[in-house]
Amino acid sequence: MENELVFLPLGGSGEIGMNMNLFGIGPADARKWIIVDTGVTFGGDDTPGIDLITPDHNYLLDELDEGADLLGMVLTHGHEDHIGAVAHLWPDLECDIYATPFTAELVRRKFKEVGIDDAPIRIVDLQARFELGPFDLEFITLTHSIPEPNAIAIRTEFGTLLHTGDWKLDPRPVLGSKTDAEALSELGEEGVLAMICDSTNVLSEGRSGSESDVADTLQQIVSEQKGRVAVTTFASNVSRLVSVCRAAMAADRSVCLLGRSMLRMIDVARMVDLLPEGVSFVDPKEAGYLPKDKILYLCTGSQGEERAALARIARDDHPDLVLSDGDTVIFSSKIIPGNERGIYELMNQLTDLGVSIITEEDAFVHVSGHPCRDELRDMYSWVKPRYAIPVHGEARHLREHADLAKSLGVEETLVPRNGDLIRIAPGDLRRIDEVPSGRIMIDGKILLPQGDGVIRARRQLAAEGVIVVALAVGAKNALLDGPKLFLKGVPKDDNDGDILREVIEEAVEDALGSMSKNKLGDDRDIENALRRAIRAELAPRWGKRCDIAVLVNRA
Amino acid sequence: MENELVFLPLGGSGEIGMNMNLFGIGPADARKWIIVDTGVTFGGDDTPGIDLITPDHNYLLDELDEGADLLGMVLTHGHEDHIGAVAHLWPDLECDIYATPFTAELVRRKFKEVGIDDAPIRIVDLQARFELGPFDLEFITLTHSIPEPNAIAIRTEFGTLLHTGDWKLDPRPVLGSKTDAEALSELGEEGVLAMICDSTNVLSEGRSGSESDVADTLQQIVSEQKGRVAVTTFASNVSRLVSVCRAAMAADRSVCLLGRSMLRMIDVARMVDLLPEGVSFVDPKEAGYLPKDKILYLCTGSQGEERAALARIARDDHPDLVLSDGDTVIFSSKIIPGNERGIYELMNQLTDLGVSIITEEDAFVHVSGHPCRDELRDMYSWVKPRYAIPVHGEARHLREHADLAKSLGVEETLVPRNGDLIRIAPGDLRRIDEVPSGRIMIDGKILLPQGDGVIRARRQLAAEGVIVVALAVGAKNALLDGPKLFLKGVPKDDNDGDILREVIEEAVEDALGSMSKNKLGDDRDIENALRRAIRAELAPRWGKRCDIAVLVNRA
Repeated sequence: MENELVFLPLGGSGEIGMNMNLFGIGPADARKWIIVDTGVTFGGDDTPGIDLITPDHNYLLDELDEGADLLGMVLTHGHEDHIGAVAHLWPDLECDIYATPFTAELVRRKFKEVGIDDAPIRIVDLQARFELGPFDLEFITLTHSIPEPNAIAIRTEFGTLLHTGDWKLDPRPVLGSKTDAEALSELGEEGVLAMICDSTNVLSEGRSGSESDVADTLQQIVSEQKGRVAVTTFASNVSRLVSVCRAAMAADRSVCLLGRSMLRMIDVARMVDLLPEGVSFVDPKEAGYLPKDKILYLCTGSQGEERAALARIARDDHPDLVLSDGDTVIFSSKIIPGNERGIYELMNQLTDLGVSIITEEDAFVHVSGHPCRDELRDMYSWVKPRYAIPVHGEARHLREHADLAKSLGVEETLVPRNGDLIRIAPGDLRRIDEVPSGRIMIDGKILLPQGDGVIRARRQLAAEGVIVVALAVGAKNALLDGPKLFLKGVPKDDNDGDILREVIEEAVEDALGSMSKNKLGDDRDIENALRRAIRAELAPRWGKRCDIAVLVNRA
Repeated sequence: MENELVFLPLGGSGEIGMNMNLFGIGPADARKWIIVDTGVTFGGDDTPGIDLITPDHNYLLDELDEGADLLGMVLTHGHEDHIGAVAHLWPDLECDIYATPFTAELVRRKFKEVGIDDAPIRIVDLQARFELGPFDLEFITLTHSIPEPNAIAIRTEFGTLLHTGDWKLDPRPVLGSKTDAEALSELGEEGVLAMICDSTNVLSEGRSGSESDVADTLQQIVSEQKGRVAVTTFASNVSRLVSVCRAAMAADRSVCLLGRSMLRMIDVARMVDLLPEGVSFVDPKEAGYLPKDKILYLCTGSQGEERAALARIARDDHPDLVLSDGDTVIFSSKIIPGNERGIYELMNQLTDLGVSIITEEDAFVHVSGHPCRDELRDMYSWVKPRYAIPVHGEARHLREHADLAKSLGVEETLVPRNGDLIRIAPGDLRRIDEVPSGRIMIDGKILLPQGDGVIRARRQLAAEGVIVVALAVGAKNALLDGPKLFLKGVPKDDNDGDILREVIEEAVEDALGSMSKNKLGDDRDIENALRRAIRAELAPRWGKRCDIAVLVNRA
C-alpha cells in the first residue's frame, strides 16, 4: 500500500465548536497519527441532561487496535472547543500531550477534575520546534482571544502543512506578541502544500480589530460611571481581564472577581506569569464596604448561564453584590448563537433592578478573536498555500472560505466534513473515504454515543411524560392486588374535573375485569389491553399519546 | 367605591408575544371590562411537549364570578401573538369578538380547528366606531406586517385612550392604506389621556422602512437569478407575498406555494378580497415540469421549523422540490431570537445542496413591522398623550420607551408588568394592585397553569431519565416474584462493561435479600432501601441522580 499524507477532521468541520483534527502519514494499514486539538461543544435543551459533547474518537481507536500508531496530541490553544475533551478521551488514547505553558496548565487542571494525575503533558515553549515520528512540528505565535494561541507548521516528507488553529491579526495585542507574520512569510517562501485554516468570521468583511481598542473604550466608559460597575466577559480572555483591570485602576476603582472560572483563569494566568504588574483584586466580602464609585466587579456569566455570577446578581440573590439604580453592567462579550433568550432574560432582570446596560451594540466593548476577510487575505498572501482546507466553521462558512481562497489564487480547495478522510499527498487533494464520526455525549461519568437512543428517549419523556402500571397476578391468573400506578410529567386533571390518575386507574380496572383468565396469563396481552384502555380514555381528555409501560409480577 | 378607569395587561408587558390587555371602568367591585387582543406565545425546548402558551385569564374569570361584566373582546390585528389564544380561552369567557374582516376570518378558522362553530365574531369595518357599554371604540388604520392593522381609540367619561396595537409608519405600503396620521392628529387635538403603545423596536434608531423598498429589492434579485428561486417569509405578511409574486411575474416566473400556512393565508386573503389582480399560482406537481428559470417557490419555514416546507427541502425530502447547485433561497424574514440554531442549521443544509442563500444581512429583503424611534417620535407628536404606558416589549424595551416618551414631553409614564392593575383616572396614573397573572401551557387539550409542576417534572425526566421497580410481596412478606424494572432515558452500560439494568437488578435483589420480614411489611421501608441501594451502585458508574419509583403490590 502506498505511503501517503492524510487529514481527518473528527470535529469542527461543519460546526463551530468541538475541534479535533487528525494528520496521518504512512500506508493505509499502518498509519502514524497525530491529533491537533480535542475540544468539546456544549449541550443544550435539545440534549437534556448533557453539559458536554465530545467528538467520537472510535474510528481512531479501531485504527490503533489494527496497528496504527498515535504519536501524540498537540494543542494549539486553551479554549474549551480545543482542549475540553482531552481529559475525557485521553484514557482511551494514552498519548503524550504537547502544549504551551498556559494551555498546559489549563489541561492539567482538567485532568485533575476527572481524577487523573498521570497524564503526560509535555510543556513546549512558544515557537518550539520538535519532531513526532515523521512529523516535524513548529509552533508559530498568533493573536487570538486567549493567551498563547499557536499555529502549527507541520513539515513532512510530502511537504509542509500549516494548521492555523484559531487566530486573528491584532495590531496591538494587550498581552503577548503580535502574530508572527515573518515566520508565516518565511514558511510561505519555503513552500506550503496545504493550509488548514479558521473559517469562523469569513462572512464578515474587513478586520476584526484590536484588543487595545476595546481597552481604550472600556477605560473611557468606566471613567464616566458614577455608580457600581460590573463587567462580564469570557474568563479565558486574559487580555480582556487585564484591560478591565487597567480601566478600573485608571478610574481609581478596585477590582473584585466574581465567579469560579474568573478566579481560576486569573490563577492560571498568574501561575504562568502572564499577569502584568499592578493587577490586584479585593475580596468580595471587602468590596461591599467600598464606595460604589471605587469598585468594579469582573463577573462570569456573559452568556446568561444560570449558575454564573451575573445571573445570580440579576436575580438579586448574589451573596456579595446587589446592583440597583445608577449602576452599570458592561457586556464585554458577544452573544453566542443559541444563547439569545437567556441573555435577553438576564438583561431584562438587570433592567428591572434599574441597572444600565452597555453591550457591543452600544460601544466597542468587544472584539472577535477570529479573522475577518481582510485578515484571511493577509494570511493567504503570506503563506501562499497550494491547497486550502477550511475548517472551524459551519457548512456556509467553509464554503465561503473555499471560495475566498480560490479567489486568492489557491490551486485547489476542499471543504471537509467531520469524518472525511482526505489525502493531501501524493497526487491531488481528494477525499478518499468517509469514516465513522459523530458526537459523544458526556452523561455524568458515561460517554453516550450519538444515536444510541438515550437522548431520544429523554426527549420523548420530556414531551409526553410517562405512565407505568404495576400488577401482581397470582395462581389461576387472579389479580392479587389493585394496580399500582406511577405517573410523571402527566397533567393532573383534564380541566373538566376528571383527575387523570383516577381515570387511568378506572380504565385499568375495567380492562382487567373484562379480560379472560386465559388472556391474563399472557403479559403481552395484558400490556396491550391496558395500553389500549388507557389511551382510549386519555385521547378525548388529553389528546396526546404518552409512553405507557406495564410491569406484571406473577406469584 | 369610586368609579375609575383601569388598565390591566395580562400578557405582552415584560415579554414580546402573548398580548392580552384589559380595560375596565367602574368601581372595584363591579367593573365593566373589555379585552384588547388575546394572543399566544410559542413553547420551546424549555417547555417540553408544549407548542402554545396563553396568558393566564383566571383573575378575569374570578372577577366575572364576583359580578364584573365582560363586554367584549376587540382584536387589533391577526398575528398569532394577538389572536392565537382567542379560541382556547373563549370557552371560559363567551364574549362577543370584534375584528376587521381579515382578522375575523383568521379567528373563525382558529375556532373551527378546535371544534367551536358558534363563537360570536362581529366583523367591523376599517375605521369603524361603536360602543361597548361605557367604552366608545374607534378603529384607526395603521401599517404593519399583516393586513388590516388597527389602533383602537377608546373614548371614556374619563378621557380618551389610544391603544396602538402593533404598527409602523410605512410611507409606501404594498397593500392597504398608509397610517391614518390625520385621524391620529385629530385625536391628539381632541386630547388623549394615555397612549398604550408598541415598544418592540424602541432600541433601534431611525425608521423601519417600507414594504415597497423590499418589493423593489426582491424584484431586482429575482430578475438576476438563473436557477430555481425559493423565497421564505412569514405567511401572514400578505403584502410580502404579493411583492414576491410581482417579482416573479416581472422575471417571467410562475409562483408555487409550498406549506400549509402559506396556502391558508393566501386563501384568507383571497376570501376577503385582499389579493391584487393577476396574482395566481401553479400546483406543486405542475411546477416540477417548468424550466428552472420559470418558477419561484414561496415557502413556509423561515424560522427553521422542522416540519415546514423549507426544512423538508433543505433535508432533501420534499415531495415536490429538489434544490441544487445554482439555485437560490431568499430569506425575506428576520431571525426571531431563540431560533438562531435551527435557522443556521437549515442554511448549512441548503449550502450542502449547493444552494446560494440571500438574507437581510445581504440585501434589503426584509423590513420590520414595528416602529423605530423616529416613528415613535412622530406618533407622540400626533397623539400628544398626557400619559404613556409602553407595552409589547421586554423590560429593557419598556423602560427605554418610557424614557423616550418622557423626553418627548409626556407628563407621566408607567412601565407595566403583566398583572399590574393600573388606575389611569381619576387622579394620577398609578399602579393600584398586582393581580394573579402568568402563563397557561396548552398541553394537547389541557390548559396547564404555569407552576403546577408538570413541566418541571418533564424537564427532570429529560435530564435524568426514570427508573421504576415493581415488586409483588405475598403473605408473611415473602417476595412472590423477581423485581420487574422499567428504565427510560438511562444509559445502557457504564463504558466499563456493566449493563446498568443488570447492575440495578442485582442491587434490588441484594437489598431485598438483606431486609427483615418486618421491614418488608412497610412499603416506605422497601422504597427507601431500594432507592438507596440503586443510587449506591449508580453513583460510581453513572455519577448522576435519577428519579427512582418503587411500586409494591401485596397479595
